[in-house]
Amino acid sequence: MPVISKRAQKMPASPVRKLVPFSLKAKEKGIKVYHLNIGQPDIETPQTAIDAIKNIDLKIFEYALSEGNIEYRTALKTYYHTLGFTDLTTDNFIVTNGGSEALNFAISTLCDEGDEVIIPEPYYANYNGFTQTFNVNVVAIPSSIDTGFALPEMAEFEKKITPKTKAIVLCNPGNPTGYLYTREELQQLAEIALKHDIVIISDEVYREYAYDGKTPVSMLEFPELKENCIIIDSESKRYSMCGARIGCAVTRSQKIHDAMILFAQARLSPVLLGQIAATAAHVNDTKYILSVREEYTKRRNLLVDLLNEIPGVICPKPKGAFYCVAELPVKDTDVFAQWLLENFQDNNETVMVAPMSGFYSNPELGKKQVRIAYVLNETDLRRSAELLKIALEEYNK
Amino acid sequence: MPVISKRAQKMPASPVRKLVPFSLKAKEKGIKVYHLNIGQPDIETPQTAIDAIKNIDLKIFEYALSEGNIEYRTALKTYYHTLGFTDLTTDNFIVTNGGSEALNFAISTLCDEGDEVIIPEPYYANYNGFTQTFNVNVVAIPSSIDTGFALPEMAEFEKKITPKTKAIVLCNPGNPTGYLYTREELQQLAEIALKHDIVIISDEVYREYAYDGKTPVSMLEFPELKENCIIIDSESKRYSMCGARIGCAVTRSQKIHDAMILFAQARLSPVLLGQIAATAAHVNDTKYILSVREEYTKRRNLLVDLLNEIPGVICPKPKGAFYCVAELPVKDTDVFAQWLLENFQDNNETVMVAPMSGFYSNPELGKKQVRIAYVLNETDLRRSAELLKIALEEYNK
Ligand SMILES: Cc1ncc(COP(=O)(O)O)c(C=O)c1O
Ligand SMILES: Cc1ncc(COP(=O)(O)O)c(C=O)c1O
Repeated sequence: MPVISKRAQKMPASPVRKLVPFSLKAKEKGIKVYHLNIGQPDIETPQTAIDAIKNIDLKIFEYALSEGNIEYRTALKTYYHTLGFTDLTTDNFIVTNGGSEALNFAISTLCDEGDEVIIPEPYYANYNGFTQTFNVNVVAIPSSIDTGFALPEMAEFEKKITPKTKAIVLCNPGNPTGYLYTREELQQLAEIALKHDIVIISDEVYREYAYDGKTPVSMLEFPELKENCIIIDSESKRYSMCGARIGCAVTRSQKIHDAMILFAQARLSPVLLGQIAATAAHVNDTKYILSVREEYTKRRNLLVDLLNEIPGVICPKPKGAFYCVAELPVKDTDVFAQWLLENFQDNNETVMVAPMSGFYSNPELGKKQVRIAYVLNETDLRRSAELLKIALEEYNK
Repeated sequence: MPVISKRAQKMPASPVRKLVPFSLKAKEKGIKVYHLNIGQPDIETPQTAIDAIKNIDLKIFEYALSEGNIEYRTALKTYYHTLGFTDLTTDNFIVTNGGSEALNFAISTLCDEGDEVIIPEPYYANYNGFTQTFNVNVVAIPSSIDTGFALPEMAEFEKKITPKTKAIVLCNPGNPTGYLYTREELQQLAEIALKHDIVIISDEVYREYAYDGKTPVSMLEFPELKENCIIIDSESKRYSMCGARIGCAVTRSQKIHDAMILFAQARLSPVLLGQIAATAAHVNDTKYILSVREEYTKRRNLLVDLLNEIPGVICPKPKGAFYCVAELPVKDTDVFAQWLLENFQDNNETVMVAPMSGFYSNPELGKKQVRIAYVLNETDLRRSAELLKIALEEYNK
């Protein structure tokens, strides 16, 4: 049997994936599973996007330009201009198959085997996958649930920088923490990046969903980072069109742009139909975004309150994205999450959560935590929280 | 300014890309450019696929399963059963964003930095990109236009195998050569792969388009390669739906499958809409495929004859795919192709071809050759060949 590459041998499995067989078995037994484990919203895709697809008037689904079609890059430019970044032109964007591919291009453009990227943890679990794909090492900076996942002292970042450090990856608003970086924190990180001439990869795919009147600070607000910044963006969460696979990388650096585009050319083309859907979605989207934001705000308020009412559960209120991290009164949430699917039911219903071990470079740190996505409607969220409460009582008896 | 990774510094530019600015300038001058340079057919996408998209009945464009939705994998299974591979189940397929992503997954699953893959040259230029992305080296086995690009002695392959060799990449039918491997050639390659326990990555994305009654031999016809074979497939060319970005990797090896799927999970999901289009296209597609095949046959016959009539031009008749390689009576086709766009016009028209230097590991070998795609209709092909003839006369005056 041929040998698998070392890179593949070390690829992490998705933290939720290992639970999937248990959720399937539960469903086979007739048990209804509430999915709090995934970032797939139940929010409807904008009708404009769906209509654009239904009204498509093409005889051939042709390759798009490797960097994305001009119509869609124009829509992106317009959108970024309304955000205030009026210096950007269509040449600052490379359209990708989801933010995922933009992350992949960013890492491959900046890092060689053995290089390091610094990431505050807990972090989006697939950052482990995108770095491992290129044998790049994650150097984690811990943040703690006790301080609502605020960043540690900036000195901690500088301590971790070595000649192998090529980038700092930020996720703002944060998955899984819901944390919003303050302007001061980002300013300090920008200074560190410039001082050491490394790149900030700023994953802003949840930009639209911040609450309590707060607006996330984009890394584009630091023009001094011109040569040192790549923004990761995506339409997946903005327009609840995850399956369209449309995202982009934004950079003011000609050098980084020219390097990234070579990876884009090798895979020929990003998705054509997704670009058509996203282009349409961007037109007059204010009402849509506001109503979705309001919906998430309601869900967050409801869920976080319900969770904190459960004895022994701690859940800081997230300021953005649509996840929260809860500490549970159990020893090992990997075991507990599996138990929920295998051994628990109330009225033939149970709940699926994402154990947090996979969101840390050191899995131990997440042993008592779960990530909960508030992507279900209010009724389902209420019932899910209730199930969790009943389950914890039973589990700890 | 931050440093770009070594991998990125060595990424090859697409061989056609460097000509694009010149073709744009020609168009600005009001010159019509006939594109013989790209693999984007003018053939219509099946109406079934377009209708499936237009009739879409979804409220949310959700993530697909990382390995592809069961409906589409079932369509793939059915299709492979009609090809005779009735042992395959839906678990043998991983759906990808084009054959491109399948190639990417295959290389990353098998190869570490510094490893080698053997490829008969000339080969699809982006193989250089997919290997360079992972700092993997291509070891080329030359084939020559003089023998119609038949494979050299098998001993040549064995000579090139080292402990670093992880795979042999084949493209059958071949882009750019149009070559069809004989069963004997493939049998011998299978034996070599087994003897040295390396994997054959068989790129069969042009499988449907072979001519003169010939059927390409799939590497799946060698069951002894169970653990040692990955098929690269794509709907791009089969259904002229390149922009849908749907392809797949097929393998009977559980080990390779399990490793590949980790890369698929990291990027979350292949395209949803493309899977819907492709699932529909596979239903009752015989008439479509036959009529497209007939159309390509006509074009090939016409074009190859016209090319061989031009003094000094040699063009072996391709047996499959929709490209041919022509040797031209010029010193350097990179210079000539640019001249065609910059300095030539006849009746305000010119032609764009792909210089072959980028299709060889040693660019010198392709200096006198161009790749011509017969993806235009007969009238345009006639005029293109005429333009080439006039241009060569003028160029060589
Ligand atoms: C933080 C973060 N970045 C990037 C992505 C990638 O999403 P996509 O590839 O659908 O754009 C996700 C998806 O969940 C995410 O949570
Ligand atoms: C030989 C070969 N393999 C793979 C591909 C990838 O095509 P896609 O990613 O559109 O499936 C191409 C495209 O031209 C090709 O010619």
